[in-house]
Amino acid sequence: MADKELQKRHKPAAPLSEPMRGIPGFFYDLKPAEPQGANSLQVERAKATFDSSKMTRFLFTNYLGGIVNEVQDVLENDETFSKENRYYMGRSERFLDRLKMDSKFAQLARELKWDDARRTMGSLLIDEPGTFSLHTGMFMPCLNSQGTDEQRKYWLGLAHNYRIIGCYAQTELGHGSNVQGLETTATYIPETEQFEIHSPSLTASKWWVGGLGKTATHAIVMARLITKGKDFGPHAFIVPIRSLENHKPFAGIMVGDVGPKMGFNCVDNGFILFNKYRIPRDHMLMRYSKVDKEGNYSAPPVQKISYGTMIFVRAYLVASSALALARGATVAIRYSAIRRQFTDPEASKNDEVFQQYVPQNPKLKCETAVIDYSLQQYRLFPIIAQSYALHFSGFWMLRIYMKMMKNMNDGNMDLLPEVHAASSGLKSLTTTIAAAGIEECRRSCGGHGYSLFSGLPDFLNTFLPLVTLEGDNHLLTQQTSRYLLKQLRKYKQDPSSIPKSDGSTTKYLGAMPTKSWTAAKTEADLQNPLILLEAFAHRSQRLVIELATKMAKGQVWNDSLIEMYAISKAHCQYILLKNFVHAAYHDKRAAANEVAPVLVTLCVLFGLSTMESELSEFVEDGFVSQKQTVWLRAQIKKSLAAVRPNAVALVDSWGIPDYVLNSALGRYDGKVYESMFEMALKEPLNVNARAHGDVVEGYEEFLKPLIQRGLSSDDKAKL
Amino acid sequence: MADKELQKRHKPAAPLSEPMRGIPGFFYDLKPAEPQGANSLQVERAKATFDSSKMTRFLFTNYLGGIVNEVQDVLENDETFSKENRYYMGRSERFLDRLKMDSKFAQLARELKWDDARRTMGSLLIDEPGTFSLHTGMFMPCLNSQGTDEQRKYWLGLAHNYRIIGCYAQTELGHGSNVQGLETTATYIPETEQFEIHSPSLTASKWWVGGLGKTATHAIVMARLITKGKDFGPHAFIVPIRSLENHKPFAGIMVGDVGPKMGFNCVDNGFILFNKYRIPRDHMLMRYSKVDKEGNYSAPPVQKISYGTMIFVRAYLVASSALALARGATVAIRYSAIRRQFTDPEASKNDEVFQQYVPQNPKLKCETAVIDYSLQQYRLFPIIAQSYALHFSGFWMLRIYMKMMKNMNDGNMDLLPEVHAASSGLKSLTTTIAAAGIEECRRSCGGHGYSLFSGLPDFLNTFLPLVTLEGDNHLLTQQTSRYLLKQLRKYKQDPSSIPKSDGSTTKYLGAMPTKSWTAAKTEADLQNPLILLEAFAHRSQRLVIELATKMAKGQVWNDSLIEMYAISKAHCQYILLKNFVHAAYHDKRAAANEVAPVLVTLCVLFGLSTMESELSEFVEDGFVSQKQTVWLRAQIKKSLAAVRPNAVALVDSWGIPDYVLNSALGRYDGKVYESMFEMALKEPLNVNARAHGDVVEGYEEFLKPLIQRGLSSDDKAKL
Ligand SMILES: Cc1cc2nc3c(=O)[nH]c(=O)nc-3n(C[C@H](O)[C@H](O)[C@H](O)COP(=O)(O)OP(=O)(O)OC[C@H]3O[C@@H](n4cnc5c(N)ncnc54)[C@H](O)[C@@H]3O)c2cc1C
Ligand SMILES: Cc1cc2nc3c(=O)[nH]c(=O)nc-3n(C[C@H](O)[C@H](O)[C@H](O)COP(=O)(O)OP(=O)(O)OC[C@H]3O[C@@H](n4cnc5c(N)ncnc54)[C@H](O)[C@@H]3O)c2cc1C
Repeated sequence: MADKELQKRHKPAAPLSEPMRGIPGFFYDLKPAEPQGANSLQVERAKATFDSSKMTRFLFTNYLGGIVNEVQDVLENDETFSKENRYYMGRSERFLDRLKMDSKFAQLARELKWDDARRTMGSLLIDEPGTFSLHTGMFMPCLNSQGTDEQRKYWLGLAHNYRIIGCYAQTELGHGSNVQGLETTATYIPETEQFEIHSPSLTASKWWVGGLGKTATHAIVMARLITKGKDFGPHAFIVPIRSLENHKPFAGIMVGDVGPKMGFNCVDNGFILFNKYRIPRDHMLMRYSKVDKEGNYSAPPVQKISYGTMIFVRAYLVASSALALARGATVAIRYSAIRRQFTDPEASKNDEVFQQYVPQNPKLKCETAVIDYSLQQYRLFPIIAQSYALHFSGFWMLRIYMKMMKNMNDGNMDLLPEVHAASSGLKSLTTTIAAAGIEECRRSCGGHGYSLFSGLPDFLNTFLPLVTLEGDNHLLTQQTSRYLLKQLRKYKQDPSSIPKSDGSTTKYLGAMPTKSWTAAKTEADLQNPLILLEAFAHRSQRLVIELATKMAKGQVWNDSLIEMYAISKAHCQYILLKNFVHAAYHDKRAAANEVAPVLVTLCVLFGLSTMESELSEFVEDGFVSQKQTVWLRAQIKKSLAAVRPNAVALVDSWGIPDYVLNSALGRYDGKVYESMFEMALKEPLNVNARAHGDVVEGYEEFLKPLIQRGLSSDDKAKL
Repeated sequence: MADKELQKRHKPAAPLSEPMRGIPGFFYDLKPAEPQGANSLQVERAKATFDSSKMTRFLFTNYLGGIVNEVQDVLENDETFSKENRYYMGRSERFLDRLKMDSKFAQLARELKWDDARRTMGSLLIDEPGTFSLHTGMFMPCLNSQGTDEQRKYWLGLAHNYRIIGCYAQTELGHGSNVQGLETTATYIPETEQFEIHSPSLTASKWWVGGLGKTATHAIVMARLITKGKDFGPHAFIVPIRSLENHKPFAGIMVGDVGPKMGFNCVDNGFILFNKYRIPRDHMLMRYSKVDKEGNYSAPPVQKISYGTMIFVRAYLVASSALALARGATVAIRYSAIRRQFTDPEASKNDEVFQQYVPQNPKLKCETAVIDYSLQQYRLFPIIAQSYALHFSGFWMLRIYMKMMKNMNDGNMDLLPEVHAASSGLKSLTTTIAAAGIEECRRSCGGHGYSLFSGLPDFLNTFLPLVTLEGDNHLLTQQTSRYLLKQLRKYKQDPSSIPKSDGSTTKYLGAMPTKSWTAAKTEADLQNPLILLEAFAHRSQRLVIELATKMAKGQVWNDSLIEMYAISKAHCQYILLKNFVHAAYHDKRAAANEVAPVLVTLCVLFGLSTMESELSEFVEDGFVSQKQTVWLRAQIKKSLAAVRPNAVALVDSWGIPDYVLNSALGRYDGKVYESMFEMALKEPLNVNARAHGDVVEGYEEFLKPLIQRGLSSDDKAKL
């Protein structure tokens, strides 16, 4: 059960409590048919075998919990940040609304002296990409890491106070993944000590740049540095875009918004073309590469520090994927516990609400909660397990990132290749899992999942670009595989290089290959996550060895991409399970908070269901036997049953505030149907019609002529 | 190459040919970097091994082709049906725009005396659900099948001329799938010979009803018939909703729109609540069930005719899923042939465009078309194969439906259970495949797939409800499985009942179970679709037998839903492959049009890739051996290579007009980048800004105060 501190996060007004204009009186007497959603959720919460507020504390920390409430209080009490109209707005309105929020947020953050943690929490709670997202998320970090001390002092000072608003312009209409193929040039003109930024073609136009379309005053532009006739490839330049006095774009550039998107419509992703546009020499970011006054280029010292940022961003994306799944699951699980459809007494035998009705008084109708249908559990409970799995690996990545950075500061780069490989594959795998999971959650809500009021469509559409951004999910797997192939070779050539530590993600590659899953001797062994982990290690090792063999026999790179995708996935599923095992068994805080048992249950479900979804790769070489697959499918059912009593508490544990969910189906209080109705009544088509005798705009022009064509007024009266 | 008749379907104006206000002159001198998209597509089309216009004729018929062009001509020449602004409109605008189109379309159809085929083609070309969709799609058919002759005459006459506009109100806020659980009542009042329609609770509100929100004048309402104190369950009633004189809703009802959705925003899906609302007795549809003046109820004679409509609708959905996939593939394949990213000479070795550049003149850059990366092929080519597979099964369903209806008219119901089972499972499987495939196509376009201009997001969002509508895809599989389990029992008890005809979809259930895939003796055997089909039959049979055994041992229904889902899928994948084999080998028109060889290639790819995606079910019982799985993966690569030269021609063959694609990436002429730019320039945020010195609305209010806070005008000038 959640404690008071957590309950505070869920405080939306009871729906339909205020009368609205133009609604007939009889409406206000209506209640949803029995049983009420609140009742169902209450019963669910009461039967949990662990304390969800302790789980919340285990997942995050007390510190974070405090910040949520603090920042949420500020935002919820300011009209500017109201989400009431979000689902009704078209593109232009939504952009403007967001601009207003960003402006107000900047002001608030300054006044309340919010630190970075609070600012980040603010964005998480506002829960929408913003027009300034790239300003804080890319422009400033890039200045920070690539600017000279002088540049940092000057530009970061301006940026921090929103004197200038920046964006990051790398992608072009013709090039995204292949950064080396960018066309925009920056040619050094020694005579004037300037760079001339130029777009030689239509496809050279920068494209997709967040905040550039309408907002930014400055862009960091990646352009091919050309000096003394030589092309040194893409480098970063600070380019002024719009006048600070009147916000007009400068002559010599053409800038605008790239148009409507699947989501992200509150952001002005933009394009920009340069026509021999000049900037001073000191606008090139010169911490590493430099061009002197004469135009002599000096290359950067070999530096891998910039990988750090990339790995940090990916750790963040893995953790975000966890929260995204958790959010999808929160809506789908709560709604599934409330939604009742058909009556199956066998399915409802453990449902107290059902038992209060049907058996005691067969005249009282009560249907089966859809959460009690085994197929619904099979679709949704693995998603709960995945959300926890992703969370533990996200935090693992953050920990290992910090360790790595510490090492690197001491000149030790050892961890980098391993962490880079894991981060590429994990970013790819976890964002793919989350995107699929959110959509499955949405579908599991039936028709109402298609309504924006469910909170899932808009959220999914905002999440979706993550499968493409920060490295396309298919491309990324080549990085991971390249590393694994290399390690395999190394371990073979020099067995002493095989890692000894269990902390290593690739130790398994050096192990003696096994032929069959001998550790799983009885069906009950499949409830042991360590035995499952062994199977994952075997599968990944086998796939890597097989590809290495093929390539040794001459299979070229391009013919190996399919296998590389599989290998990266296998390796990262192994990591996910490994980190989950660690959290459930070895994290002392889990034991202290009495959540270890439920985590073990969940960890097993994660292992089993992941194994089932990739079963052919475990079976095809004879590793997992026919008998073991039968056990597997049976044990999945057992795990689903074990998770069942804790399903609602497990999603409650994430503590995602109603303010974030913005969902009629996922509300903490279970008032699903009242909330759907209230939101529908506020639909502008309804509000406008109610203001005009409940007749729709367009009637006179488009419907009346059709309906009344050629009728006399006499006829009309008759109809 | 496509012939002239087909080329006519692709005639959008060249993009960027007309200057726009506020665009600097240098813009018009820019071209996309070489090579041009048109060039790439031309080379692709030239290397096809078959004639795509013949394939078009094979897939459809000459007759249909003629209608496309005829109707498209009318629509493309009428401003009302322009799609130019579709992607920029918000909800209310889009609804109004659609209402305008519907009104005009009704008028045109009347004037031009369009038959049903032309009207249907019109909706397909307009390519958007409409406010009148349910009027023609459900209201009229329902009147037709359930109304008495008198009712039909009266109401259909009005409906046909749009004197009234109808909708179909079954689903309620609380009940969708379980129709028997509907709450709305229709209580007969003998004194006044009326029914009193009433909503006893909030959840009794009708919900989701297309066209009800703002447009319809009448609804067919499904309500529980109560007469003489007895509840006879849901029956259909014609209920007047809005005045024909002024379109105001009548007193005693509360009606409105259910609010914004993931898609379908041009439709006014609506809710309605009834407060003891009276209608005359003769408004009950009384073809089968009747209530006389005194309130005596007479039940319908047992009649299975209504299954006919359902099966027809599902056949239509299977065929629509084919077209939907084809459309996704058209965009993704054309764009992949144009999009170039990174250089891999090995991958581009068969690319003539690449060869013209790099090897001959290494200074000319040319990157690898992404269609030449094996992973991209692995993602996309199976989708092409699926689109053909679904098409053949959709047409098979239509044929068998017609045969069944003919039989039924002769009193022979034999086909019904088999066709009903197949139609349930196929609707579920094919809409699921199509939804996944469209999204995969979208992602395979990288960042640009996220732009509405790609044509895919909007289209996907419109397609998505089909996984929930007309039977939720998960629920439906229970119908198919129930039938298969029953047949298995029957065949066991009475072997003489095992079908003899190869036309039967369940003959395999009665075959002697086999232990291993002996037919696949060599790797080359996997290129034989008949041998593949055998494996699909085995797998489905095994799964059905295993579930039957479990249930015989006492496994209850609810514990069997997971297996039922698997069985239904296995059975329907078998049907899809079976029908594909038929089309490629036995359809004389395929041979006559010289498309049989390419169809065989595609059929093999469909079989192999489907087998791979479900591999564990083929392998886990030892049927497919370890060696055979190795062959399988190798043969998939071979099939991908075999499809490669025909990829563009295979999507061209569907003949989907540019007017429908509405896609910058999928245009027939390959002018991808020009088109992206033109569409971006028309984005309202840009148009509005250009009208105001290129400064965004909201600048003065939200940006200026932030940027210029506390600055003197002196400072500003300096910045
Ligand atoms: C919402 C959104 C916001 C964005 N914000 C910004 C921003 O602020 N600043 C910025 O600079 N950019 C931004 N981008 C651009 C983004 O970084 C790119 O879209 C992304 O990197 C993908 O590149 P691409 O579009 O060129 O994909 P492509 O590389 O063209 O990919 C197309 C297809 O080809 C495949 N492919 C490509 N190369 C290979 C290969 N070698 N092997 C196998 N397959 C291959 C891919 O897997 C994919 O399926 C944004 C994009 C979006 C959608
Ligand atoms: C765009 C759109 C247009 C529509 N138009 C119309 C219209 O014009 N007229 C109209 O009357 N209706 C319309 N509908 C409603 C539509 O028919 C229903 O939404 C649909 O039938 C699904 O029912 P539901 O929403 O009650 O889903 P539910 O039955 O509530 O499904 C919720 C979840 O429970 C699961 N579930 C339910 N029962 C079982 C079971 N026995 N075993 C296992 N799992 C189960 C489902 O699989 C699903 O995952 C429309 C809906 C949409 C989205």
